[in-house]
Amino acid sequence: MHHNFVLLTDFMASNSIGEILRITSFGESHGSAMGGVIDGFPPGIEIDINFIQKELDRRKPGQSSIVTQRKETDKIDILSGIFNGKSTGTPIAFIVKNNDQRSRDYSTIADIYRPSHADYTYHKKYGIADYRGGGRSSARETLVRVAAGAFAKLLLKKKSINILAFSHTIGTLTINSKNQIFTNEIIESNPVRCPDNKMAQQIITMLKKLAKEGDSIGGIVECRISGVPVGLGEPVYEKLSANLAKAMMGINAAKGFEIGSGFEGIRMKGSEQNDSFVIIDNQIKTQTNNSGGIQGGISNGEEIVFRVAFKAPASISRLQKSVDKSGNEVEFSVKGRHDPCVVPRAVPVVEAMAALVIADHYMRNSINKTFE
Amino acid sequence: MHHNFVLLTDFMASNSIGEILRITSFGESHGSAMGGVIDGFPPGIEIDINFIQKELDRRKPGQSSIVTQRKETDKIDILSGIFNGKSTGTPIAFIVKNNDQRSRDYSTIADIYRPSHADYTYHKKYGIADYRGGGRSSARETLVRVAAGAFAKLLLKKKSINILAFSHTIGTLTINSKNQIFTNEIIESNPVRCPDNKMAQQIITMLKKLAKEGDSIGGIVECRISGVPVGLGEPVYEKLSANLAKAMMGINAAKGFEIGSGFEGIRMKGSEQNDSFVIIDNQIKTQTNNSGGIQGGISNGEEIVFRVAFKAPASISRLQKSVDKSGNEVEFSVKGRHDPCVVPRAVPVVEAMAALVIADHYMRNSINKTFE
Amino acid sequence: MHHNFVLLTDFMASNSIGEILRITSFGESHGSAMGGVIDGFPPGIEIDINFIQKELDRRKPGQSSIVTQRKETDKIDILSGIFNGKSTGTPIAFIVKNNDQRSRDYSTIADIYRPSHADYTYHKKYGIADYRGGGRSSARETLVRVAAGAFAKLLLKKKSINILAFSHTIGTLTINSKNQIFTNEIIESNPVRCPDNKMAQQIITMLKKLAKEGDSIGGIVECRISGVPVGLGEPVYEKLSANLAKAMMGINAAKGFEIGSGFEGIRMKGSEQNDSFVIIDNQIKTQTNNSGGIQGGISNGEEIVFRVAFKAPASISRLQKSVDKSGNEVEFSVKGRHDPCVVPRAVPVVEAMAALVIADHYMRNSINKTFE
Amino acid sequence: MHHNFVLLTDFMASNSIGEILRITSFGESHGSAMGGVIDGFPPGIEIDINFIQKELDRRKPGQSSIVTQRKETDKIDILSGIFNGKSTGTPIAFIVKNNDQRSRDYSTIADIYRPSHADYTYHKKYGIADYRGGGRSSARETLVRVAAGAFAKLLLKKKSINILAFSHTIGTLTINSKNQIFTNEIIESNPVRCPDNKMAQQIITMLKKLAKEGDSIGGIVECRISGVPVGLGEPVYEKLSANLAKAMMGINAAKGFEIGSGFEGIRMKGSEQNDSFVIIDNQIKTQTNNSGGIQGGISNGEEIVFRVAFKAPASISRLQKSVDKSGNEVEFSVKGRHDPCVVPRAVPVVEAMAALVIADHYMRNSINKTFE
Repeated sequence: MHHNFVLLTDFMASNSIGEILRITSFGESHGSAMGGVIDGFPPGIEIDINFIQKELDRRKPGQSSIVTQRKETDKIDILSGIFNGKSTGTPIAFIVKNNDQRSRDYSTIADIYRPSHADYTYHKKYGIADYRGGGRSSARETLVRVAAGAFAKLLLKKKSINILAFSHTIGTLTINSKNQIFTNEIIESNPVRCPDNKMAQQIITMLKKLAKEGDSIGGIVECRISGVPVGLGEPVYEKLSANLAKAMMGINAAKGFEIGSGFEGIRMKGSEQNDSFVIIDNQIKTQTNNSGGIQGGISNGEEIVFRVAFKAPASISRLQKSVDKSGNEVEFSVKGRHDPCVVPRAVPVVEAMAALVIADHYMRNSINKTFE
Repeated sequence: MHHNFVLLTDFMASNSIGEILRITSFGESHGSAMGGVIDGFPPGIEIDINFIQKELDRRKPGQSSIVTQRKETDKIDILSGIFNGKSTGTPIAFIVKNNDQRSRDYSTIADIYRPSHADYTYHKKYGIADYRGGGRSSARETLVRVAAGAFAKLLLKKKSINILAFSHTIGTLTINSKNQIFTNEIIESNPVRCPDNKMAQQIITMLKKLAKEGDSIGGIVECRISGVPVGLGEPVYEKLSANLAKAMMGINAAKGFEIGSGFEGIRMKGSEQNDSFVIIDNQIKTQTNNSGGIQGGISNGEEIVFRVAFKAPASISRLQKSVDKSGNEVEFSVKGRHDPCVVPRAVPVVEAMAALVIADHYMRNSINKTFE
Repeated sequence: MHHNFVLLTDFMASNSIGEILRITSFGESHGSAMGGVIDGFPPGIEIDINFIQKELDRRKPGQSSIVTQRKETDKIDILSGIFNGKSTGTPIAFIVKNNDQRSRDYSTIADIYRPSHADYTYHKKYGIADYRGGGRSSARETLVRVAAGAFAKLLLKKKSINILAFSHTIGTLTINSKNQIFTNEIIESNPVRCPDNKMAQQIITMLKKLAKEGDSIGGIVECRISGVPVGLGEPVYEKLSANLAKAMMGINAAKGFEIGSGFEGIRMKGSEQNDSFVIIDNQIKTQTNNSGGIQGGISNGEEIVFRVAFKAPASISRLQKSVDKSGNEVEFSVKGRHDPCVVPRAVPVVEAMAALVIADHYMRNSINKTFE
Repeated sequence: MHHNFVLLTDFMASNSIGEILRITSFGESHGSAMGGVIDGFPPGIEIDINFIQKELDRRKPGQSSIVTQRKETDKIDILSGIFNGKSTGTPIAFIVKNNDQRSRDYSTIADIYRPSHADYTYHKKYGIADYRGGGRSSARETLVRVAAGAFAKLLLKKKSINILAFSHTIGTLTINSKNQIFTNEIIESNPVRCPDNKMAQQIITMLKKLAKEGDSIGGIVECRISGVPVGLGEPVYEKLSANLAKAMMGINAAKGFEIGSGFEGIRMKGSEQNDSFVIIDNQIKTQTNNSGGIQGGISNGEEIVFRVAFKAPASISRLQKSVDKSGNEVEFSVKGRHDPCVVPRAVPVVEAMAALVIADHYMRNSINKTFE
C-alpha cells in the first residue's frame, strides 16, 4: 500500500490554565520528571506538604489491586515559592520524578496507531509520535493537576469551601446520589471511591472480571462544592459553569459534562425546573437545586453539583485492529496491566481541577472593592 | 423580616473569547445597541453581508409563531475593518440597534428575584439589578455571537469546513440522529429546526400547548462539523473538546455538553468504544466515531459531533413563588409572550460558537510551519 | 525596473491593552467611526461625560493655530455600560464619528511609500495600503486612547491619584522641570502645553516658522503621577515601569522612554544615584527620586516621573524622495496642513495611556487580600 | 519612633512573557534552583545544549575580575520537551541549581531597607522581605531569561536573524557606534564587552577604581538585530517597538529605552528625520535608519537598533543612610564584592530578551497565510 500521509509539524502551546491563579504544566510520562509552576499564589499561606503528598497518593498508580501497577512513589519536590513553611507570593515550582521509566516492551507497538489513543493525532500534528507510553498525552500528566489542585484546596479551606467527588456510575452500576450527603471518609473507604459500599463491592468484582478479560469500562464522576459564596463567575464568556466545563473536558478520557439537572433535566417543564427562592434562617436560598449552584454563569450560594462522563480506557489487552505508520492494516494486542476504568483515579483529578477553577474565580471576584 | 443581605459590587470582565480570532461583546438588551469587535480577522477575505444578515435572521425574535414576538429588525451595521467588500485585517466592529426598547410592564416584577433567572446572582455580584429585561444576561446578547460566528463561517467556508446544528430532542420528543445525514435545507424547513418533519410537527403542537399553559420545556441541540483537518486542538489545557465545551456552556440556559459517545457511551467496554483505524481510499479513517472526531484533544479528521443540553426557559407566565429584594416571600407571574423552548433559536447560536472555536483553533494550528 | 516584491497578507490582532481593565480599539481614520470597548470597568462609578468630552477636546484637531485643521467635532457617543449616570459593570462601548472624511487629494500620493510613514510596512504586512490618510496607523486612533483614559482617570480620582503631563522639550527648546511643581491650569494656558509661558511663546514662534517652511520637529513629553500608593507593579515581567514603557512606545511617533534619572543618570555613581530612605512626618520617604517612583518594578509611593521622546512628524510639505509601489524612485510633496510637532497633542495621549496602566495595576494589586 | 506602617500582603503573578512563545520563570536567588518553562516552542528543532550553556556562561558571576565573585557553575538541566536531541513541541522545562547559597552575613542588614533596592517595595507589597540577597528581585533571575533566550536564538538562526549587543557607554566613557559594524568576536574579546578595545581598557581601569572605592556606575547597552523580515509587530498596542521596550524595561536596573534616533533625534526636523526609500539591488531600502528598523510599530527590513540605559548598581560598600523596618534611621555599609557596573553582564540579558520578543513576533506574524 502506498498511503503517504504528510507529517505536519506543529507545536504544543497552551500548557497553562487559570487567569489569576495560573498553572503551567510540563513533563513527559517517560522523561525524567513531571512538574508545574503555580503563578499568582498569594503570600503568607501555610503550606501543608503532607496534605499535598496525600492528594498525590490518591492519584498514584499501584494504590490498589484494581489500578495499574506502574511503580511510582510520586514524591513531590518543591523548588521555589515557599519559605519557612509559608508561601512567599513568588511562583511555586514543583517536580515529581519519574522512577519507572524502564522501557517496557513498546517496540512491538511503536509503529501502530492505537485505536482511540492520541498516537495518530499527535503524530500528524507534531510530526513526532512518542512510542514510550504516551509522552505528554499520558494520564500521568494529571499528577501535575492534582498537586496544583492541592495548593488551591489550601486556599479554599481558608474560606470553608469544600470539594468532594466520587464515583457515581461505572458501566451500568450506578448509585442514586440525589439529596444524599457523603463524606470524604466513606468515599475513601473503598478503592473505587464509591460512597455506597455495597455498590463498591459489585464494581470491584466487575472491574476484576474486565481486567481478566483484557477489557475496560467507562463511568461518571460526580463532584460537589459546598461553601461557595454568591458571585463567582464572570459573564458572558467566562461563566463559572463554562470554565468548569473546560477544565473537566480537558481531563484525559472525558466525554461529557453536565451541571445541576443536566441532560436528564431537559424533559422538565419550566415550572418544574425553576428553583424557587425562599427564605430559610434569614437567608435567601433556593427550594430545589436544578441550577446546580450556578445561575446566569454566577454561583448562587447553593451547592455546586456537576458530573463528568469518562469513556472506557483505550488501553486494553484484547486483540485489536488498527493501522501502522506505514499505512498497513494490522492486528495487535497491548501487553501489560492497565486500569480497567479511569473513574476511581479520576476522582482526585476532578476535585483538583475544580479547586483550581474555584480558587481562580474567587480571586477574580475579589477585585470587586477596588474603587469603592 | 429583617433579612439584610450585603450588596457586593464587582465588575464584569471577560466579555471576550478566542485567542487569535478574538471577539469582544457589548450591549444590554434594553440599551441603545448590542455589538461586537472581531480582532484578528485576516485581511483580504470577501465579506458577504447578506450571509451575515441571514444568520442573524435565523436567531431573531418574531421569526415564527413559536418564538417570542419582540419586534426587532436586527439589522447589522459594520463600523470598521471592511473596505471595498473585503476585510482589511483591522478590527471589525459591528452594532445592532435595539428597536423594541419600550418599557414593558416590568414594574410589577422589578423587585422580584425571578427563579432560575440571573436577577439574584447579578444583583449580589454587581450591586445592580437591571429590571428592564435582563440587561447583559439577556439571551439577546447571543446576537453578537451569531454575527461574529457568521464572519468565522466565511473563513471556514474557504477550507470547506461545514457546521450544521439541529434540534435533536425537545422534552421527550427525540430523533435518532445516529448515522443519518442532514442538510441545512431540511433543518430550516420547519420553525423548530428539527430535521425530521413529522417529529417537527409533534414538537410544534407540544410547544403551542405549553405556551398556552404558560410553561416551557428543555431540549438538546446536536452539532456536526465536517471537513475539519487532523490537528486542531492544543494539549493539555486547550484541547479542542475543552474549548468547544466552554463555548457551549457559556450559552444561556446550557446545562450539559457531550462529545461522541458522551454520557451514554460510559456503558461501553473499551473493546466496543475504541474506534479502529482502517484504510479507506488510501486515507486513514476510523471505523466508528465514538470519539466524536477528537482524540487526545486534537481533531482526527472525522466528523466532529457534539450535543448541548438546554433547560426549559425560566420565563413562564404561570404563577410562581419567590423572594423580593427586601427579603419578602412573594407570589407573581410574568406577563408577555416568551419562547416556550430555547432550542430552535439556540441552533444558530451553537453553530456560531462552534465556528468561532474552530476558526480560532485553525489559526492557532497554522503557526506550525514557522521555523521549518 | 522590475522590482517585484511579494505582498504578504497578514492580519492585525492585538488591538487590546490591559489585563483587568482592558481596552479594545477599533476604527479607521477615514471610516465611519472610531471607537472602543472598555471591559472590566467597575460598577457604581459616577460617569462625568463632560469630563470625558473635555479630555477628547484636548486632543482634537483644530483646537489651535499650531495644529492640523482637520474639522472634527469628536463627540463621544456611549452605547453601553452606563445606566442612570453610573457604570453598571458591563462593557462600556463608545464611538466617535468621523465627520471630515471627504477624500482629500490623496490620489497623487496613493502609490507612494511616504518616508517614515507606515505605508510600506502595512502594505507589505497586510497586502493592503490605505491611501485615505493612514487608516488604522493614523494618529486619529489615539482619540480612542484618550476617551478610555478619561474613564480610567475617573477611577484614579477616587483614590486621589493625579496624572499631569506637559511639553518638556520641543526641538532645542527645553525647560528645566526638575523639582518644579506645575498645575494643569498653567499647562493648559498655552496651546503648546508648556508650563513655562515664556518658553511656550518661543516654541509657538518656532513651530509657525517650521509650518511655513513645510517642515516639522520632535520633542519630549514629561509625565508625573502623584498619589500612587506603594505596591503597584507585578514582578518580574509585568513591572509597572515595563508596562508604562510599552504603553508609551505604542503611541505613534514615540522613539524613547525613560524613568527617573533615565539616560542622563547613567553617569551617576551608585552613591549619587541611590535614593536614601528617610523618615518625614512619620512616613518612609526617599530623599531624592532618581528611581522615578518605581523600585524593583513596584511603585514606592514617591511621584512617578517619566519622559517620552517623539520624533518629528513624517508628514511634511517639503519635496521628498521615495519609492512607489511599482518600485520606481519618485519625488513628491504632501499638500495640506499638518501638525509641525506632535508633542502638544501627545500630552493628553500620554496622560491617558498612563491612566490606563495605573488603573489596571491598581486593580491587579487589589487582589491582595483575597485569602487573608 | 513609633512609625507603624501597614504590611499589605499581595502576590506576585505575571512571571510569564510572550504570546505564542511563552516563558514562565521561577526560583529565588537563595532557594534550591532557578528555572523556567518554555511553552510554544516548535517541534523538530535541533537543540545545541553547548550553545545554551555558553550563553549562560556569558552571564554567570565570576567570569572575570570586574564582576561579582559569587561561585556558581550555572549548569543547565533540561527536564522535558527534548527527545533525541530535538524539541518535541512539548513544554521545555529547565533548572539551574543555586550552589552558592551559604548565608553570607546578611544578618546585619536584614532589617534595613537598602536604598534603591527592592527591599522596601517588596516588603510593603508582599508582607515578606527576603533578607537572603534579594530573593526573586535578585539579578540572578536573569539567568532564566538568558537560557530561554538561547532557545529562541536557535529558532532565529534558522531564519538568519542575528542579535548582537554590546557596551555602548559606561559612565562618561562612550563609543561612537553609528555606522560601525561589530562582530561577536570583538565584543567578547574583553570582559566589559565593549567593541572598542582601547575604550574597554579605560573602562576596566575605571571599574577597578570604582570597586576599590566601594562605588558603582551606570551605562548603556546597544543592541542590533539584523535579518529581520518586513512585517513583525502587531498594531496598535502590540507594536514590535512597544514589546521590545517592555522586555528591556523589565530587566533589573533598566532606566530607559530608545530606538533609532531616540532621545537625541528629537532635535531633528522631519526633513532630516525621514528615512527616504530607495532602490538598492532591486530591493526597497531606506537611505538612513533613524527609524531603527521599525515603522508604524512594524519591522521594515532594516537593522533594528535600540539602546537600554542601566543605572549604577545599588549595592555599594560605601557608608549609606537609610531606614530599617522599625522605622529607625540608620547608617550601614554592605560587605562583599558586587558588580561595579551591570552593563557587561547585561549584554547577554538584553540579547536574550530581544531574541524572545523577535521569535514571538515572528510566530505571531506567521499566522498570515491561514486562509489564503
